[in-house]
Amino acid sequence: MIERIAILGTGLLGTSVGLALRAAGFGGAITGWNRGAEGAQTALAAKAIDSIAADPLQAARESDVTLLAVPIYATLDLMEQLGPILGCDHLVTDVGSTKRKICEAAARLFNRRDRAAFLPGHPMAGKERGGAALGDADLFRGAVWLFTDVPTWERSPTSSALVQGWRDWVGAMGSKTIDLDPVRHDELVAWVSHLPQFVATALSALLQEEVGDAPELKDVGGRGLREMTRLGASPFSMWRDIAYTNTEAVQAALLALEHRLAHLRENLHTPALRDEFEQANRFRRE
Amino acid sequence: MIERIAILGTGLLGTSVGLALRAAGFGGAITGWNRGAEGAQTALAAKAIDSIAADPLQAARESDVTLLAVPIYATLDLMEQLGPILGCDHLVTDVGSTKRKICEAAARLFNRRDRAAFLPGHPMAGKERGGAALGDADLFRGAVWLFTDVPTWERSPTSSALVQGWRDWVGAMGSKTIDLDPVRHDELVAWVSHLPQFVATALSALLQEEVGDAPELKDVGGRGLREMTRLGASPFSMWRDIAYTNTEAVQAALLALEHRLAHLRENLHTPALRDEFEQANRFRRE
Repeated sequence: MIERIAILGTGLLGTSVGLALRAAGFGGAITGWNRGAEGAQTALAAKAIDSIAADPLQAARESDVTLLAVPIYATLDLMEQLGPILGCDHLVTDVGSTKRKICEAAARLFNRRDRAAFLPGHPMAGKERGGAALGDADLFRGAVWLFTDVPTWERSPTSSALVQGWRDWVGAMGSKTIDLDPVRHDELVAWVSHLPQFVATALSALLQEEVGDAPELKDVGGRGLREMTRLGASPFSMWRDIAYTNTEAVQAALLALEHRLAHLRENLHTPALRDEFEQANRFRRE
Repeated sequence: MIERIAILGTGLLGTSVGLALRAAGFGGAITGWNRGAEGAQTALAAKAIDSIAADPLQAARESDVTLLAVPIYATLDLMEQLGPILGCDHLVTDVGSTKRKICEAAARLFNRRDRAAFLPGHPMAGKERGGAALGDADLFRGAVWLFTDVPTWERSPTSSALVQGWRDWVGAMGSKTIDLDPVRHDELVAWVSHLPQFVATALSALLQEEVGDAPELKDVGGRGLREMTRLGASPFSMWRDIAYTNTEAVQAALLALEHRLAHLRENLHTPALRDEFEQANRFRRE
C-alpha cells in the first residue's frame, strides 16, 4: 500500500526511521531531504534513504507518506506549505515532542475529504545528542510511539488506508503504539519527559558552577551522578521549541518539583523524609 | 602484614569488600558480623567471609583490621565501644557516606600512639538496593575510594603500617583513592552524591502522585525517565543518617537547585534558557 516515503529532516530520528523501515522489510522508495546537505549525505551513505530530494515539497508530492522529522516550528512551517498542495491520496505524519499546536494546525490544514491526512505522532525514543551519524535501526524497538489522532477528523478512504498502513509500519519497527488526546499528551510528557530533561539541565548547570573546576571530582559521584546528568548534554536546539509550545505544563511541573525539593529540605530531620522515600520507592516498584 | 580482617556489617558494601578482597588475592582470615543473622549467613555462603563472629567487639580484638560497614550512627556507636578496647596494633576503617562526625569521633577515640588507628574511608560505589545477596566482587572496580585522613593524627608504627596496608588492598580491589579534608568531603558529596539522590527521590515521589495511577504510561518516558528516577528506589534506611549528619550542606545544595529550577521556569522564552543548556552541556563535555 505504502510504496513511496519522503523523510523531511534526516537527523537522528529521520535517519533512524529510514534504517528501521528497511530493517523491518520496507521495500519501497525512501527519499530524504535535510536543511543541511551533510545530514542528507550521511543518511544516504547509511542507506537510511535511497535518494536525496532537492525540494521538500516536491518530494512530498511524489510520495504516499511524508514524515516530518524536524523541530516543532519547522514542522508547523512545512505543514502550512504542504496542506494546500497535497491531495487526498497522501498522508503526512510527524515525530514532534509536543502535539497541541501541531494538532491545531492539522485540523486547519489537513484531514478533510479533499486534503491529505495528517497523523500526529511522537516516538518516545532519542539520544542525548542528535544527528544522522547516530541513526540507529533499533532506536524504536521496545519504545512507545504515541499518536494523538482526533476521532472527528474526516479522511478519504485512500488516506485512511495510509494512516493504518503507517501505524502498521510503526509496529513493525518494534514500537508499541498508544493513542492519547493531544492536550493530555502534552500534560503527560511535561511530567515524564520534559520535567526530567529540565531537571537534568538545571542540575548539570549548577554542578558545572559548583564542581566544574575540579573535573577529577566528577568521578566521585559514580553511576548515579552520570545518570542524573546524562540528559544535561541535550542541545538547546532540540528543546527550545518544546519550551515554547508546552510552556504552561512545563512551568507547572517545574513549580511542583521546586515545592517538593523545598519540602525535603525542610524535613531532613522529620518523619516526612521517610514518607518521601517510601512514595519514591512506590514509583519504582509499581 | 594484614592477616586477619573483621567486617562488621555484611550488607551490600561489607559483603562486596569480602568478595573483592578474595578476588584480589587476600589469603588471610575474614570474619564477619551482622546485626541480622540472615545477612551474615548470606555473606558466608557467598564466601565473602569465612566465619561468622558472635560478638563484634571480640571479632575486632582478634583482627588486624576492622572494617565498619554499617550506617553512620551505628558506625559512631561501634567507634565509641572499640576506641577504649583496641591497642596500637589495630586499624579500624569505615565506609560511611559522611565524614565530618566520624572524623571528630576518630580524633577523640583513636589515632594516638597507645590506641588503634582509625582511617576514615568512603567508597563511591553502591547500588540502589542493599543487602548481602547483591554483594559483588567488582563493585569497587573503577570507582573512587575517598579517604579523609587527618595529617596531625599520631599513630604507632604498627598501626601506620596497617593504614598503608589497607590503602594497598583498596587499590588492589580496583579503586582509585583520593584524599580529601573531611569538611571538604562532606560539601563535595552533598553536590555530587546527596543532591542527585534527593532530586531523584523528590522527582519519583512527585511522579508517583501525578502519573502513578497510569503505570503503562511510565514506559512513555523511556530511558531518560528510568535513569532520572532509578535512585528513587533507594531505601530511607540508607539515607536517614546522611540527612542527619550532613544537613547544612544538603540544605544548601537543595536550595541552590530550587533557585535554578525557578530560573529555568521563569525563562522558558528568553535567551537565559540557552545559557542554562550551554552551561549544562559544559558539565558533560569537560
